[in-house]
Amino acid sequence: MPVESEIIARIRRRSLSHDQVPVGIGDDAAVINTGGAMDMIACSDLMVEGVHFRREWDAPGLIGHKALAVTLSDVAAMGGIAKFAMISIALPRDLSSGFIEQIFQGVFNLADSCGVSIIGGDTSSSPGSLFIDTSVIGECATGRAITRRGARIGDSIYVTGTLGASALGLLLLEQGIRLEDCDKDPARQRALMKQLAPEPRLNVGRAIAEMNLATAMIDISDGLSTDLWHILDESGCGAIIHASEIPIDESVRSFSAKAAEKDPLYLALDGGEEYELLFTARREDQNRVAALSRSLGIAVTVIGEIVADNGLQLERNGVLEPLKASGYEHMI
Amino acid sequence: MPVESEIIARIRRRSLSHDQVPVGIGDDAAVINTGGAMDMIACSDLMVEGVHFRREWDAPGLIGHKALAVTLSDVAAMGGIAKFAMISIALPRDLSSGFIEQIFQGVFNLADSCGVSIIGGDTSSSPGSLFIDTSVIGECATGRAITRRGARIGDSIYVTGTLGASALGLLLLEQGIRLEDCDKDPARQRALMKQLAPEPRLNVGRAIAEMNLATAMIDISDGLSTDLWHILDESGCGAIIHASEIPIDESVRSFSAKAAEKDPLYLALDGGEEYELLFTARREDQNRVAALSRSLGIAVTVIGEIVADNGLQLERNGVLEPLKASGYEHMI
Repeated sequence: MPVESEIIARIRRRSLSHDQVPVGIGDDAAVINTGGAMDMIACSDLMVEGVHFRREWDAPGLIGHKALAVTLSDVAAMGGIAKFAMISIALPRDLSSGFIEQIFQGVFNLADSCGVSIIGGDTSSSPGSLFIDTSVIGECATGRAITRRGARIGDSIYVTGTLGASALGLLLLEQGIRLEDCDKDPARQRALMKQLAPEPRLNVGRAIAEMNLATAMIDISDGLSTDLWHILDESGCGAIIHASEIPIDESVRSFSAKAAEKDPLYLALDGGEEYELLFTARREDQNRVAALSRSLGIAVTVIGEIVADNGLQLERNGVLEPLKASGYEHMI
Repeated sequence: MPVESEIIARIRRRSLSHDQVPVGIGDDAAVINTGGAMDMIACSDLMVEGVHFRREWDAPGLIGHKALAVTLSDVAAMGGIAKFAMISIALPRDLSSGFIEQIFQGVFNLADSCGVSIIGGDTSSSPGSLFIDTSVIGECATGRAITRRGARIGDSIYVTGTLGASALGLLLLEQGIRLEDCDKDPARQRALMKQLAPEPRLNVGRAIAEMNLATAMIDISDGLSTDLWHILDESGCGAIIHASEIPIDESVRSFSAKAAEKDPLYLALDGGEEYELLFTARREDQNRVAALSRSLGIAVTVIGEIVADNGLQLERNGVLEPLKASGYEHMI
């Protein structure tokens, strides 16, 4: 039973380099040089019922929203502008017309709000699960897409927003808690919404690219620790992050204080599906990052720095410990 | 339980027009105006186990081949050049590494032979069926993509290759006949290969566009009758086709002569998954079409003509009868 990373590594070895494709398999999205002022960005993301979501956890509109959001997040992670999307969907035969309509409503509402046009796709019946694959085509100024491979020693490491809420939302869903139960509990509602309806950070990603701020960038889909490892692997360097600087979401702190089950730090370090942006930038650009954060009204927190080697280490109370990639590894 | 065409019609109404997208949902592929010398072409096609194929009918390499072939065929139907592809695949947990490897081998072999680069995609496990969604990005000279909507009264109707073999292949598979049983029966082998490993007509499609030959074009995925109806609906005209002119595949003629079960004409008229090109061209271009056919070594047969109205009619022994869209309608 191979894991996803092994399959992707094999496909990557098999794929031929192409002089029009400066970035191919192995980053958040592919970059295609068009010969004009703008590069094309293209990516796909798959959502499978029973693997990425459950129908009984979710309103159909949120399923549609999330299916497109995760792919738009890949464009954000390249610093790109999302423009067009295609939706392929395999529909179990027991779905009602209304349910199907609401899935598409969720897709179209998010597309509209991000200035994305739905230009095609495919539909089929499914003998089992609901399956949604979304492909997004975007663009960025030629040569300006932000890959995983540019981090340099001395760079600061930043993350947008707060972390851990999506993982908490998943825990709550697994415990049987639903959105409609949380009218009077804004912390839980926030955690569930982060899990069920993530918002792609397109504006921040685009601004980071336009300001030429980041040396490397990725979206946090598999968890901070795993996704930072991706940057380190591709950039050939190490990192130290500081436990006290990780921006743990308020919902996670309040929940963990009550439940005392999970260390909120590890929910934030290892929880996947955050769809926040993780990037590195030169230390001297600290004030420009702060200005960007203020102008967009989105928290951008420095959590550590790129070092020469020794992989990824977590500094906690002055003590360094190695930090594994403990986020989500998709088993096939 | 809505049918696919109703869902697509609803999505099409909901999608906004975009001045950069001269052709959107409702054709074989979308066309995006890039502002340069070439338009971009983009499309997706979904293959679901138990709906479009069965694992026990097929070698894994052929499953991969067909998944990409059907999407490349959409680019061919626009007269485009296929350039890049993304493959999203949900893999049942009981698949071996070797099986998965062979699926990708089939995808890559076809991609290589068509000059297409695999630039991305996604992988996931699947709790049930095997799902493969392929997205292809291509290009054509600006404004030269061939849609379904340009057929004009007096145009001749053409089809590439021969018809009915894919439908026959499906019948054989349903009767338990497999490729490995047909070593000494080239007719059956041909029918099975047409069903299991169709070859996209990229060279013909591209040449038709470069010669500015076609007024409308579509690939035969749902069956000649259904796909011709799509051209008539979009172009706002009618057609007469001649039974004696339909290029019925030799394998279908020999099989039907033996079995006397199915009228070979109706296998050719209504059988889906042919992935031949159906196009209309001005009557005065007959010699240019013949020259194209000779230069590429591919049969291109005139089967009828576009008329003012009365929908689609079949002329058989001098008698006209209405011809319904009797090809494959995907039930959701």
